[in-house]
Amino acid sequence: MTELAGLKPQHFLWEMQGRVAVIRLSRPERKNPLTFDSYAELRDTFRALPYASDVDVVVFASNGGNFCSGGDVHDIIGPLVGMDMKSLLAFTRMTGDLVKAMIGCGKPIIAAVDGICVGAGAIIAMASDLRLATPEAKCAFLFTRVGLAGCDMGACAMLPRIIGQGRAAELLYTGRTMAAEEGHSWGFWNALHSVETLTDEAMKLAARLAAGPVFAHGMTKTQLNHEWNMGLEQAIEAEAQAQAICMQTRDFERAYHAFVAKEKPVFQGD
Amino acid sequence: MTELAGLKPQHFLWEMQGRVAVIRLSRPERKNPLTFDSYAELRDTFRALPYASDVDVVVFASNGGNFCSGGDVHDIIGPLVGMDMKSLLAFTRMTGDLVKAMIGCGKPIIAAVDGICVGAGAIIAMASDLRLATPEAKCAFLFTRVGLAGCDMGACAMLPRIIGQGRAAELLYTGRTMAAEEGHSWGFWNALHSVETLTDEAMKLAARLAAGPVFAHGMTKTQLNHEWNMGLEQAIEAEAQAQAICMQTRDFERAYHAFVAKEKPVFQGD
Amino acid sequence: MTELAGLKPQHFLWEMQGRVAVIRLSRPERKNPLTFDSYAELRDTFRALPYASDVDVVVFASNGGNFCSGGDVHDIIGPLVGMDMKSLLAFTRMTGDLVKAMIGCGKPIIAAVDGICVGAGAIIAMASDLRLATPEAKCAFLFTRVGLAGCDMGACAMLPRIIGQGRAAELLYTGRTMAAEEGHSWGFWNALHSVETLTDEAMKLAARLAAGPVFAHGMTKTQLNHEWNMGLEQAIEAEAQAQAICMQTRDFERAYHAFVAKEKPVFQGD
Repeated sequence: MTELAGLKPQHFLWEMQGRVAVIRLSRPERKNPLTFDSYAELRDTFRALPYASDVDVVVFASNGGNFCSGGDVHDIIGPLVGMDMKSLLAFTRMTGDLVKAMIGCGKPIIAAVDGICVGAGAIIAMASDLRLATPEAKCAFLFTRVGLAGCDMGACAMLPRIIGQGRAAELLYTGRTMAAEEGHSWGFWNALHSVETLTDEAMKLAARLAAGPVFAHGMTKTQLNHEWNMGLEQAIEAEAQAQAICMQTRDFERAYHAFVAKEKPVFQGD
Repeated sequence: MTELAGLKPQHFLWEMQGRVAVIRLSRPERKNPLTFDSYAELRDTFRALPYASDVDVVVFASNGGNFCSGGDVHDIIGPLVGMDMKSLLAFTRMTGDLVKAMIGCGKPIIAAVDGICVGAGAIIAMASDLRLATPEAKCAFLFTRVGLAGCDMGACAMLPRIIGQGRAAELLYTGRTMAAEEGHSWGFWNALHSVETLTDEAMKLAARLAAGPVFAHGMTKTQLNHEWNMGLEQAIEAEAQAQAICMQTRDFERAYHAFVAKEKPVFQGD
Repeated sequence: MTELAGLKPQHFLWEMQGRVAVIRLSRPERKNPLTFDSYAELRDTFRALPYASDVDVVVFASNGGNFCSGGDVHDIIGPLVGMDMKSLLAFTRMTGDLVKAMIGCGKPIIAAVDGICVGAGAIIAMASDLRLATPEAKCAFLFTRVGLAGCDMGACAMLPRIIGQGRAAELLYTGRTMAAEEGHSWGFWNALHSVETLTDEAMKLAARLAAGPVFAHGMTKTQLNHEWNMGLEQAIEAEAQAQAICMQTRDFERAYHAFVAKEKPVFQGD
């Protein structure tokens, strides 16, 4: 196990609040575009998270009123035009690897989205486990607007499972903006909060999860992502095994003893 | 084939109304918790249903204002604490087997939920085919509250397919209560009915299904549960076969002749 | 590659508006039932679409105030009654082949639904990529009403992915009509438009898609349908490959140069 409290990323902001890591993209003047460098560094950070002993929950927050404007036109889109297939595939695999690393990091990720959340930014929100937004959040899968397909970084697999196939198809074919209220009523956003309260609410939710049985949360995350293409019989067996493992944790024992003593359990993640 | 009309379960209530079986848990003074015994007896009963010639539909009803409070803290949670892995897995597989038996019983199951519907109770509602509730229904997947993971008895496979991945994640990570209106707007509850009318409405719906082509209903149930992890091509072929079988039933013939005669078809389930 | 502009189908209406093909069933006096012949001709037409160089989008429109009343009782249901299994399976496979052909045609399909949209008509709407309707649209999967199962032409695979498992189960078990507002709030209909404006809105949406990167749209369609039973890792790799292919199109280059020049890109589908 390693510790990430001292992490000093060069291409995004990183801050620890207790056992909650807060990530923010760092170019608010341009609505926080992603670059080759920030993609790679985010991927490596999420890949380190399963081994981090001091992080239980991640909040992917907004910065300067916006979440993320997607791949930088000058840094990314320009170089991709005219690139050979080997290099293109290396790029699309790297962006996909960020999603795989988020899915596989073993800790719940809460996206806290204000303002612009488009392209790869929308994907980062989608690949988070829980999503909070402000009424000003504007989310668009605008790949089609730059001549590309909607199938980017897993969008055709994940978006239909969040909002349904018909709504996902509309967003991916047209690239139109999903308004915040719409996204809330569709289940994309778990809740809407005012700009003033968004960060606080995200941190409260993160603290609540961090105060929970975090070993078990990791199992919940794994199963939520692994059971998409399992048969029901296989999923039920997988959960029988996963939950039996959780029943040997001390958190389960703590909860039982707290219940009997009519106290609130204090979970410790083991 | 066997008959279940005379079934006298020891650990839950069983009643026949025509060809509709009504199940109720039987400890209303404790909001109907499950015990090792009731789990096992429910599992065996649902396993007997495919061979029952006298039951076409099951209503899983509430009792004394509540549906089910989940695994009994004293009967189940206590003994599980400190149990060895072999025994734990035997338990989680048995609870999973109840879900498998409900899914595989070949008859539509209607949950009629009033009041508390939590933990394994929420799973029973989720594993039913149709779900009615009162505005007072309080449904929570509260495994996380007792130090466990949300992946219990197939929850991570089934809940996202009913209400979407984002909403399912929130309920499973936080264990919070889903209010009745919320569950209705999310598609978890098919309809809300007042406490006074819930049972009647559930029995009316059950009678309607029992008066339908019940052989075909069994095929619908099978396919709804088996096609989750099929490719679309495979699902379409599976349905071509399943529906061709149904086209050889007399119910199909009855429907055609009734239509031509401008009468209402009387289905007999063969 | 072939051209379909001159197509003269015998059993449905076909019209080109620019690069948008408009299909209408042709028996409005009977609410546009399907026959053995129209099934087969529709299947063959959708099978020809991947090779059609002059069609980018399909609108499946209504005719005379109704979309489609499903399989004709006299032409189809009657002959099916008493048919041997070999012939029944040949029929259910042919109807399934229509759905497979729609899914595999490589071009977005927009259903524009007014009035009756039932049985196989509801399936055609469901198998389209986007669905617009009028407030008068009445959609029902009424197979159960004619003694059959809800698993017809892929319904048990597709409907739950559009509106969720619980709502799909209700519609398929009961055969009840889904009201237009209900279908809109459930994500079955992408939007509702008045009878007066439905066709215009469908054509506007079709023109918008046809003016987009249609090669990339084809990839979006493929992935939206192929990733249902992929694991997330596999889906992300599949999208990395698919999007890398799209990054070598000239439409991607056009979009970049238009952006730099602060112009609107003009996509040409290559």
